[in-house]
Amino acid sequence: MLQKINSEPTIDSGLLSPGRVGTGVDHLISDEAWVQAMLDVEVALARAQADLGVIPASAADSIATACHADLMNLRSLGEGVRVTANPVVGLVEQLTAAVSEIDRGAAEYVHRGSTSQDILDSAMMLVCKRALTHVDDELTRCADALAALAEQHRNTPMVGRTLTQHAVPITFGLKAAGWLQMVLDAKERIQRILDLGLPASLGGAAGTLSAYAEYAALAGRPGELGLELIEPFAAHLGLRAPLVPWHGLRTPVADVAGALAFTTGALGKFALDVQIMTRTEIRELAEPAAPGRGASSAMPQKHNPVLATLIATAARQLPAYALVLFQCLVVEDERSAGGWHAEWQPLRECLHLSAGAATNAAELASGLQVIPRRMHDNLLLTGGAVVSERLNAAFAPIFGKAAAKRLLTRIIEEAGDSDHDLVDFLSREAAGEGHHVDQAALRRLLDPREYTGASPQLADRVLRRLRDSGLR
Amino acid sequence: MLQKINSEPTIDSGLLSPGRVGTGVDHLISDEAWVQAMLDVEVALARAQADLGVIPASAADSIATACHADLMNLRSLGEGVRVTANPVVGLVEQLTAAVSEIDRGAAEYVHRGSTSQDILDSAMMLVCKRALTHVDDELTRCADALAALAEQHRNTPMVGRTLTQHAVPITFGLKAAGWLQMVLDAKERIQRILDLGLPASLGGAAGTLSAYAEYAALAGRPGELGLELIEPFAAHLGLRAPLVPWHGLRTPVADVAGALAFTTGALGKFALDVQIMTRTEIRELAEPAAPGRGASSAMPQKHNPVLATLIATAARQLPAYALVLFQCLVVEDERSAGGWHAEWQPLRECLHLSAGAATNAAELASGLQVIPRRMHDNLLLTGGAVVSERLNAAFAPIFGKAAAKRLLTRIIEEAGDSDHDLVDFLSREAAGEGHHVDQAALRRLLDPREYTGASPQLADRVLRRLRDSGLR
Amino acid sequence: MLQKINSEPTIDSGLLSPGRVGTGVDHLISDEAWVQAMLDVEVALARAQADLGVIPASAADSIATACHADLMNLRSLGEGVRVTANPVVGLVEQLTAAVSEIDRGAAEYVHRGSTSQDILDSAMMLVCKRALTHVDDELTRCADALAALAEQHRNTPMVGRTLTQHAVPITFGLKAAGWLQMVLDAKERIQRILDLGLPASLGGAAGTLSAYAEYAALAGRPGELGLELIEPFAAHLGLRAPLVPWHGLRTPVADVAGALAFTTGALGKFALDVQIMTRTEIRELAEPAAPGRGASSAMPQKHNPVLATLIATAARQLPAYALVLFQCLVVEDERSAGGWHAEWQPLRECLHLSAGAATNAAELASGLQVIPRRMHDNLLLTGGAVVSERLNAAFAPIFGKAAAKRLLTRIIEEAGDSDHDLVDFLSREAAGEGHHVDQAALRRLLDPREYTGASPQLADRVLRRLRDSGLR
Amino acid sequence: MLQKINSEPTIDSGLLSPGRVGTGVDHLISDEAWVQAMLDVEVALARAQADLGVIPASAADSIATACHADLMNLRSLGEGVRVTANPVVGLVEQLTAAVSEIDRGAAEYVHRGSTSQDILDSAMMLVCKRALTHVDDELTRCADALAALAEQHRNTPMVGRTLTQHAVPITFGLKAAGWLQMVLDAKERIQRILDLGLPASLGGAAGTLSAYAEYAALAGRPGELGLELIEPFAAHLGLRAPLVPWHGLRTPVADVAGALAFTTGALGKFALDVQIMTRTEIRELAEPAAPGRGASSAMPQKHNPVLATLIATAARQLPAYALVLFQCLVVEDERSAGGWHAEWQPLRECLHLSAGAATNAAELASGLQVIPRRMHDNLLLTGGAVVSERLNAAFAPIFGKAAAKRLLTRIIEEAGDSDHDLVDFLSREAAGEGHHVDQAALRRLLDPREYTGASPQLADRVLRRLRDSGLR
Repeated sequence: MLQKINSEPTIDSGLLSPGRVGTGVDHLISDEAWVQAMLDVEVALARAQADLGVIPASAADSIATACHADLMNLRSLGEGVRVTANPVVGLVEQLTAAVSEIDRGAAEYVHRGSTSQDILDSAMMLVCKRALTHVDDELTRCADALAALAEQHRNTPMVGRTLTQHAVPITFGLKAAGWLQMVLDAKERIQRILDLGLPASLGGAAGTLSAYAEYAALAGRPGELGLELIEPFAAHLGLRAPLVPWHGLRTPVADVAGALAFTTGALGKFALDVQIMTRTEIRELAEPAAPGRGASSAMPQKHNPVLATLIATAARQLPAYALVLFQCLVVEDERSAGGWHAEWQPLRECLHLSAGAATNAAELASGLQVIPRRMHDNLLLTGGAVVSERLNAAFAPIFGKAAAKRLLTRIIEEAGDSDHDLVDFLSREAAGEGHHVDQAALRRLLDPREYTGASPQLADRVLRRLRDSGLR
Repeated sequence: MLQKINSEPTIDSGLLSPGRVGTGVDHLISDEAWVQAMLDVEVALARAQADLGVIPASAADSIATACHADLMNLRSLGEGVRVTANPVVGLVEQLTAAVSEIDRGAAEYVHRGSTSQDILDSAMMLVCKRALTHVDDELTRCADALAALAEQHRNTPMVGRTLTQHAVPITFGLKAAGWLQMVLDAKERIQRILDLGLPASLGGAAGTLSAYAEYAALAGRPGELGLELIEPFAAHLGLRAPLVPWHGLRTPVADVAGALAFTTGALGKFALDVQIMTRTEIRELAEPAAPGRGASSAMPQKHNPVLATLIATAARQLPAYALVLFQCLVVEDERSAGGWHAEWQPLRECLHLSAGAATNAAELASGLQVIPRRMHDNLLLTGGAVVSERLNAAFAPIFGKAAAKRLLTRIIEEAGDSDHDLVDFLSREAAGEGHHVDQAALRRLLDPREYTGASPQLADRVLRRLRDSGLR
Repeated sequence: MLQKINSEPTIDSGLLSPGRVGTGVDHLISDEAWVQAMLDVEVALARAQADLGVIPASAADSIATACHADLMNLRSLGEGVRVTANPVVGLVEQLTAAVSEIDRGAAEYVHRGSTSQDILDSAMMLVCKRALTHVDDELTRCADALAALAEQHRNTPMVGRTLTQHAVPITFGLKAAGWLQMVLDAKERIQRILDLGLPASLGGAAGTLSAYAEYAALAGRPGELGLELIEPFAAHLGLRAPLVPWHGLRTPVADVAGALAFTTGALGKFALDVQIMTRTEIRELAEPAAPGRGASSAMPQKHNPVLATLIATAARQLPAYALVLFQCLVVEDERSAGGWHAEWQPLRECLHLSAGAATNAAELASGLQVIPRRMHDNLLLTGGAVVSERLNAAFAPIFGKAAAKRLLTRIIEEAGDSDHDLVDFLSREAAGEGHHVDQAALRRLLDPREYTGASPQLADRVLRRLRDSGLR
Repeated sequence: MLQKINSEPTIDSGLLSPGRVGTGVDHLISDEAWVQAMLDVEVALARAQADLGVIPASAADSIATACHADLMNLRSLGEGVRVTANPVVGLVEQLTAAVSEIDRGAAEYVHRGSTSQDILDSAMMLVCKRALTHVDDELTRCADALAALAEQHRNTPMVGRTLTQHAVPITFGLKAAGWLQMVLDAKERIQRILDLGLPASLGGAAGTLSAYAEYAALAGRPGELGLELIEPFAAHLGLRAPLVPWHGLRTPVADVAGALAFTTGALGKFALDVQIMTRTEIRELAEPAAPGRGASSAMPQKHNPVLATLIATAARQLPAYALVLFQCLVVEDERSAGGWHAEWQPLRECLHLSAGAATNAAELASGLQVIPRRMHDNLLLTGGAVVSERLNAAFAPIFGKAAAKRLLTRIIEEAGDSDHDLVDFLSREAAGEGHHVDQAALRRLLDPREYTGASPQLADRVLRRLRDSGLR
């Protein structure tokens, strides 16, 4: 008997977001996570006010008892959002009711002197802090795996490609070190934010803290200005105390956007290179194998580079979401009508997709299969032309720089159209000009494995950065 | 006793998307809606193959019986997306199992000859068709309400504003007609897509239809090429038959993106004007009142322009999502690794947010409160300077164009700093130059209500467009 | 002796814009072209007013005589832009002075009743019309060249690639037809705009046409409303007469942006495919050779895919510029403070880059070197796995669909690791299951050239579209 | 006699870019500035090679002598860009020729071992360094002017606005301090880049430094790897020595993009607030007056907020250009075909527009006219409702929090519709509930000037930041 499994519509369970689905971060950025963060903020506010004697400590306790997301009705919160343009008004109503059930008197002290944006902005920063910490951890996993690749393949020769064409040899260690360098840059940018601390938001209706002061005065603490609430409030949240309220000064959001757009960009570079190197014709790399991964619904032989694809899809989207957040710097007045509201979902997507990309990149890097034999074969594909730069340098003193380049260009073209060896061609040509060329020496000069330059040493530099920098 | 209401994390119930929450379109764009659309596509494929005798009609019936979204397990579909980078592989497995339960033999005929992208792209077009039709309906509601405003206030004078400053008088009817014009432009762009028809997608593994032909041959229909499947397949879906497979030719997606970015832009213009005109100092408009709407968590007097804010927040996001879709035109090969996958969620957001914006705009337009008295007061605020352009024209023949402009600029500045009337100033100044000015005529010239130009006739033009165009 | 060549700073001679430099469209979008277009608008306004008897015909003649861009001082125009935020105020001053020199009396009739935005918007549409016509012509050249490729290679087999991996065979004719399809879609979108006609802009200070009417009245034509000026004004410009003034209703700009973002996206798909297919390991295509083209400053052997790179660089930028223009739909009031001004440069970049991309694409398509031998070699690279889909269909009736797929997946993996032939493997395996397989038939089945499906017929469809559609 | 002034087409003299025209930075970002920077890089390379004994010091001198932008032919450089996709190949040819004229033998040593991207990327960083330093200086000017406003108006009451509506009182000093805070944040982000140092780029053909080492070996310095060239090369340029070559690792460009998108966002917030506060109905601010500034071509009375408009137009564009640069993090291989090339023009626009915005903001802040009388009048506009939050706090203990809010909401609505005073209403209502209210106390409570909360102290905090932070 067929049985219905779902009962009501799900806007988004991840089905259309391959860039983030199944990467284990839903709980950090879900609606419940945001609601819990908002409730955490209400608790911190009550605790800080109790610390200062503005509300009774017992009321703060009762508020804390009620502040659990699973006590709130998300559906009706959602309905409220359309009425008041934010979820806080409705949440405060639900919370007040929940507190009332526990401790009738404490209900008066819920959200005292506060405004929606204080709650939502502080909650946003809590969510960012948790998600950024997670992204950073995943980047560490990724960095460690890339470092292992860079070390192991420090000297593995492969072809360097520029403008899609074979250029000169490199080592795969240098390639992996380049990816590592980008991941370390991403970590640095995320840690800069975490080290500085994401700021709590406290300003009241228009950023003057007036109502906080007013309630303090009513509680027998006249002369205070609300300013003294900032530090304990932030401390209860584990956030930084802001210099001034930032309802209309959106630096923290733009900073997060910038760091995450950088992060998926950095990972996207890794993914794009992997996609190229796993192409059937190139096949220098293969993605980590796993049951079913990369399977096609039609073609039994397919082994698609799925993880790289998942990362690439995130990298394609992030800059656009970050752009929305940069544009939301331009907001009017003390608190904006639309600009603020446009931040929430794109910011969540940024966190979600970059967390997904970091997890997928860590998995990709950890299991990446390197195929040195294919790297070797590809390196020989152009029959020595890949070291033409070296020949150019060697022949320049003989023929002059420009003439040497013209000569090599011609010879390589001719050699490419025949089966003849570049050594023969070059020797013959030099002889024609009255120069004797030592064929053995020339053959050594033409060995691409001997022309990887400073690749190993450059890889070492990035590995040293990883060790020295203390990037967690 | 406190009771837990939610059991598991919800990525997105709309809480962070004020631009679309609560507008009644979740069911058209939810994960379930997409899954159902994919199943609808599997049915259409089976039906079309049955029509051509490639599979038994009874198998198609059994497949149709099993093709209900509520029989599928979304959670495990999601898990599959990370393994195969799309939800179709897993869906076909679930569907095959479900068909097996009903009709063991029919399971062989599920998804026959097909590829994930045929299913998902066709489903995407089904979702687009349904959502665009809904958006179009809401735009009609909005257009009708704006037309009523334009008609009713055809002659209501108000100030025209340019570069934030009072410029010359207009009528509110013209203003509303301008909004209407944009809504009609949006409708036109959406209907162009609907009228042309969104295309089904059918190409097989690499767009050659080979496997469809192969299975046809195996079923005793050699010589066919899969081409003959396109028409009946599209017909069963109510979609247009495409000229060629478009797995890597993403015109349909870009077209939808363009039309929706236009739509929210058009509605955003309306919303921004409403936000300005509801400012406390201007207050020429008020949003439709509703219990709790626009309430602040802190300030009892607040009556925020919530609907305009909801529309504005959508308009801020859409162009960025549309940009992702335009960029996804640049995809590699027969089917892309990342570009295709990056389309799904941004496209859904475009549909969802523009549907939300259209509904909110319809509601805003329907209940908008117009305050002609405030329009009148504001029009008089600059004491006649608002018709300086007219004076300029009138005085140009007397003083010369340039001299008249210089004179008026000076007089208006002086009058602005004093309590004196512009009529006095002008008469005195003209007398000084030896000209007599008829003060009564001058006062008529200075009446801003008499200088609304062609405003009413222009409003009529847009109203005529609405009537004549047959825009549904 | 060294000699100085340049005298003063050049903001942009194209040096940093490889996507457009040297493609012969500078004269259509340069500052001079815009200034000339603005002057053309002033002429059209004077002519239309003369037609209606509002100004003397001789004054219109004098104005026309002075309206030449090379009579204006661009440098001082630029300085004026910072003072008044647009170039029209300064241009009208320069024009008035120039007219004065010719015909003192006529100076009074310059720009009569008009506003900066009427002039600049109409000029913008003139520039768009000229540039779009040029883009359309270049797309025609490109389409013709692609059609020739599609015809010539209708039956040339090559591998189809999906998610970067070999999938199933296609023909190069189908590939080229796909590019052609996108170019035709782009042409269609551009021609739709040209066929509808780009609108002139005429509204006066706040879109009510008041001052035009006022001057008409002063010239003895009371009762008119300025409306009658719209048709002749547009006719003199060869533009469409707008239904209503569109200073704050920016549909025409968004439409152009959408069509051009589509165009470079369509060409970008072509370029990206060419870049992949010219990769050293794939080398199925080569760019048209030309002296110096694709040369490297370091490596004599390099032959970079320069034209594809130039197109790709344009395609990367366009969507961002188009996004700015879509966002500028959301502008406040009758005329905006910033939104309008933000359109000009991004719109010019859109026109310039898409014209450049179209020219480069036409050149790329015209000279593209196709290497069927390499296509053939690559097709054989996986030793038959590329037709595994076909085998799957053939073996499904024997083993059952799922079992056949599992079997093939395993065999292809084993064969890939050995030197053995897929035919041997399959025969042995089938024999093991008690089935006899005709080896000759199996070998035919495994020939990828026999599995290009409907590729040729699909290419024909696009070629037919080109012939039938009358796309110029 | 009319005389032609211009001779050949100018792509861009600033006419269409009000956001940057006339702000005095053309010389830092012009084509000549980029060419000169590229030549500076060639000099630094020669000098560093001479330092190491790889080339003769006299050759380096000759190269330095020839490296002047005004010796190069920009037009033919531009033509070369289309052939080789970058300007360096052509520049090296021109430079080699110029060196030859001076010192035939030195020509061999031009660009030795180098690659186009080393030259262009290093030049790009030079241009960035110069332009960012300029932007930073202009931000300092702007910060100083805003600090003066914040100090002077520390206690000037005005209304705080949220969601477009009057909320609670603030002081203009706090408002100005908020703008200052954003400018300081922008300075911090730019100085972070300058303090870390922009990196030189040195890698050779594929980032292995091979050819540099090869030429060193030929010059009798075998065993070196090119690594030793990095430090002196960077030192000669005044740039940071990079850890590894970054041809394909685009962190430096993304960092600049992020900082500049932030900067124009920060300034855009200032501009948007000014635009609102200069609205005719609000008129609390006026832009600095200057001859002709803000003039309209039609309306003598207009005084448009031009500087704010110029800033706003820049802020609308920057995020889109920055997005292109963030997307260019995702580039393939050792050096990209298109991604790199897409950076140059958007990066230049970012530098140019943000420099323009900073200059315009400094000028706006320096001359901003504050009109406290209008701030006062607007504050009283709602007849006390603006302090309803305070009343709410005061009445909560009497009526209960929720009941007090309901009561106030009702009373304010009623009062708004009548001419009655809020004091009367409230006293009457309280009396009805059996409470006596001290009317004088109530009137004090209702004075908005007494409810600016911590505004002055918050302004002090930002001023202290400016003083303490040592932000130059």
